[in-house]
Amino acid sequence: MNEKVISALREIYGERLKTSLEDRICYSYDATGKEFLPDAVAYPLNAEEVRRTVLLANEHRFPVVPRGAGSGFSGGSLPVRGGVVLSTERMDRILSIDTENLVAVLEPGVVTETLKEEVKKKGLFYPPDPASLKFCTIGGNLAECAGGMCAVKYGVTRDYVLGLEAVLGTGELVRTGVSTVKGVVGYDLTRMLVGSEGTLGIITRATLRLVPLPEFAATLLAFFPTNEMGAKAVAGIVEERITPCAMELMDRTAVDCVRQSADLSLPDETGCALLIEVDGQEATVAREADRVEGACRRFGALEVRRAADAAGRDKLWALRRSISPAVRKVNPVKINEDIVVPRSRLAEMFAFLSGLAERKSLKIVNFGHAGDGNIHVNVMISGKDEDERRRAEEAVEEVFRKTVELGGTISGEHGIGIAKAPYMEMEVGPLGVSVMKRLKSCFDPNGILNPGKIFLEEAAVRR
Amino acid sequence: MNEKVISALREIYGERLKTSLEDRICYSYDATGKEFLPDAVAYPLNAEEVRRTVLLANEHRFPVVPRGAGSGFSGGSLPVRGGVVLSTERMDRILSIDTENLVAVLEPGVVTETLKEEVKKKGLFYPPDPASLKFCTIGGNLAECAGGMCAVKYGVTRDYVLGLEAVLGTGELVRTGVSTVKGVVGYDLTRMLVGSEGTLGIITRATLRLVPLPEFAATLLAFFPTNEMGAKAVAGIVEERITPCAMELMDRTAVDCVRQSADLSLPDETGCALLIEVDGQEATVAREADRVEGACRRFGALEVRRAADAAGRDKLWALRRSISPAVRKVNPVKINEDIVVPRSRLAEMFAFLSGLAERKSLKIVNFGHAGDGNIHVNVMISGKDEDERRRAEEAVEEVFRKTVELGGTISGEHGIGIAKAPYMEMEVGPLGVSVMKRLKSCFDPNGILNPGKIFLEEAAVRR
Repeated sequence: MNEKVISALREIYGERLKTSLEDRICYSYDATGKEFLPDAVAYPLNAEEVRRTVLLANEHRFPVVPRGAGSGFSGGSLPVRGGVVLSTERMDRILSIDTENLVAVLEPGVVTETLKEEVKKKGLFYPPDPASLKFCTIGGNLAECAGGMCAVKYGVTRDYVLGLEAVLGTGELVRTGVSTVKGVVGYDLTRMLVGSEGTLGIITRATLRLVPLPEFAATLLAFFPTNEMGAKAVAGIVEERITPCAMELMDRTAVDCVRQSADLSLPDETGCALLIEVDGQEATVAREADRVEGACRRFGALEVRRAADAAGRDKLWALRRSISPAVRKVNPVKINEDIVVPRSRLAEMFAFLSGLAERKSLKIVNFGHAGDGNIHVNVMISGKDEDERRRAEEAVEEVFRKTVELGGTISGEHGIGIAKAPYMEMEVGPLGVSVMKRLKSCFDPNGILNPGKIFLEEAAVRR
Repeated sequence: MNEKVISALREIYGERLKTSLEDRICYSYDATGKEFLPDAVAYPLNAEEVRRTVLLANEHRFPVVPRGAGSGFSGGSLPVRGGVVLSTERMDRILSIDTENLVAVLEPGVVTETLKEEVKKKGLFYPPDPASLKFCTIGGNLAECAGGMCAVKYGVTRDYVLGLEAVLGTGELVRTGVSTVKGVVGYDLTRMLVGSEGTLGIITRATLRLVPLPEFAATLLAFFPTNEMGAKAVAGIVEERITPCAMELMDRTAVDCVRQSADLSLPDETGCALLIEVDGQEATVAREADRVEGACRRFGALEVRRAADAAGRDKLWALRRSISPAVRKVNPVKINEDIVVPRSRLAEMFAFLSGLAERKSLKIVNFGHAGDGNIHVNVMISGKDEDERRRAEEAVEEVFRKTVELGGTISGEHGIGIAKAPYMEMEVGPLGVSVMKRLKSCFDPNGILNPGKIFLEEAAVRR
């Protein structure tokens, strides 16, 4: 980006355009740990500024990279080809929470937890709950179609979007969708944009659906001797027609990581822990908790603990919450994947992962949202051993192959970005890639929006 | 379509290609009552036959029009430019119902009720319930993104699609999406196809999400003196954080239609009837029914009847079910629209409709899925009076304008087809239309898939 372009951007943003090295460094990384310096960072206040930026980018052919909080695990917000990062942090207004129609309208920079807290005050619930909800933004959630713990019952971000306002790669400012649950007027541009990782359009406003806040919840923590028994309990609970709002499984490797650190004693023989939460009305919750407990025991649980009050539930959740810090302590570098397999294949997947770790002499820690089949596979590496890194890369590829073979998907909630671009074709095939490229060229003909993402030959970097 | 093309089609279909006038007449109409003769009708057995047909159509440039049961209200399955109708009635297999993963895989010709019944046998529930569910097909439901009564709680067809197999307008056979609730690998081609009315691709297989079958239900029928009071009760119930699985409102015009025919005595002063159903576990259902009854009384109900057993519930539903036959008896020709407004604007919409009927000297009967703001506006015409028809057309346009003004959408579940093509721009604007056209040209560059639908200048016919 030359001086002329920078001046033109300064005309739009004034003091809100930053070009100093310090400022650029702050927007050069995300949760992948990779770094790419942008040429400039701008803080738009409204859709019109975004539109003008994209028009300018089409004229001068520089990359425009939208960014929420930079908490993504696939590199979606990294400026891999430089250009200008558009940080949405100053577009952070909740414009309305409509309690009659159960709809919220907001700007993309709203932090997910802020939205959840604000609607909660009105007795409402915005379910998607990515682990980073304390800092990640709704714009990023929409761009990646974020999931979380409660997707097994409540679905993912896509299921709560009614309409969007976005600037397409052409610079056109479009309004898509509706403000109501129903609406079938033309093509579904709304869901075309959700999960498109900022490569088709930059979201500048969203209309989201809310639901009534569940009144009660109960949490159960069950310990099993083996991964297989825990995984079978997950499928068994669903097969009994219970729909918990969370089913978090920690396999033996994850349990071992937290055994010391968690303020919670575990049965000695524990090889797998399963945290289950049910929510709803008081009568229902108690009954469902009973049924879940019964199912866990039938599937061989060593012990089942249970809490219905907030303090007790928090204590049980501590085990699950302590995994990430514990893992970081054990090994600071990890390759974090988020595969999904059909629930009925979870046991098979865990067996495969355990064999793979042994074969490749790697530490692989697995935990995640087992209720929807979503496992976070964390390959632990020192970061300095080249051979170990190579083995880890081979292991990841094997994990992806096995995932696809089991009828699963290589990304449940993190997206493709740069991290999974080399593997996307494995799942969607060359034809799928070609169709998606056609879509890209349709809405971003000059390839100025978040270039280097999703598609392999465009990907500026590999792992 | 010349003899050469017919011979080529016969090579694919053999005896399953029909060209006699009688056969073609059978596939020339749908629920709009309009008729367009196709040149031929074929009954594919698999995706490969569909693919070969689309390739042939690209070579010889003839229209290919997919058709389920022809029960649509917007003309989606009408061969307005001739060509070959592909009837999916022989692709009617349910390939699997997976009770561990709560997923069904099926061909497009499966009748919606058949799927619902088959999964019910396994304690599962496929929620979408368009009024035509006894004969309409899943393929048609997917193409139009069908809704129904229970969308207020359970959502619409789009919310139950995990993945699709489809032949694009280019002849490419693509597999989209996943078999799991989560999945964010590339663009959302699945939801791009849902609701695209057979203009981007022909769906040849679907992977659908199922949920546990609710155990109990209770039905309430409340009578109000005015539309306004009924409409306010709808918004009031939702605002109290109750989510019924159905809230069907019949306004004064609809109540008057069925007053005689229904086997149910109504309070004399009834100006509006509201049927509400709650479902779930036994304890919850009773409690929610109490709360709904309380809310109805607070909003001025003259009387509230309630039933929890099947026979009693059926009796209450009789009133709602008798509307369509009663309306047909009163007046055989109707223009049936399916607008949606935010629930909080229902009262305003009903007042507008009542004033409009008076101003235009028309009979307009309104009823529908008020829980999600979806109203079926039926403009009754004799069909012979030219002036009346003109007034009806003016009225429909006014209804659409008011709908958009109130933040609603001109089609909640019927789609655009030919019936609403002249009005789509009113809602999505010229830019929305232009973006959608770009999408169309991307996946059907030669315009062979269901031509004359959705876009105005392509629309072969007006009302």
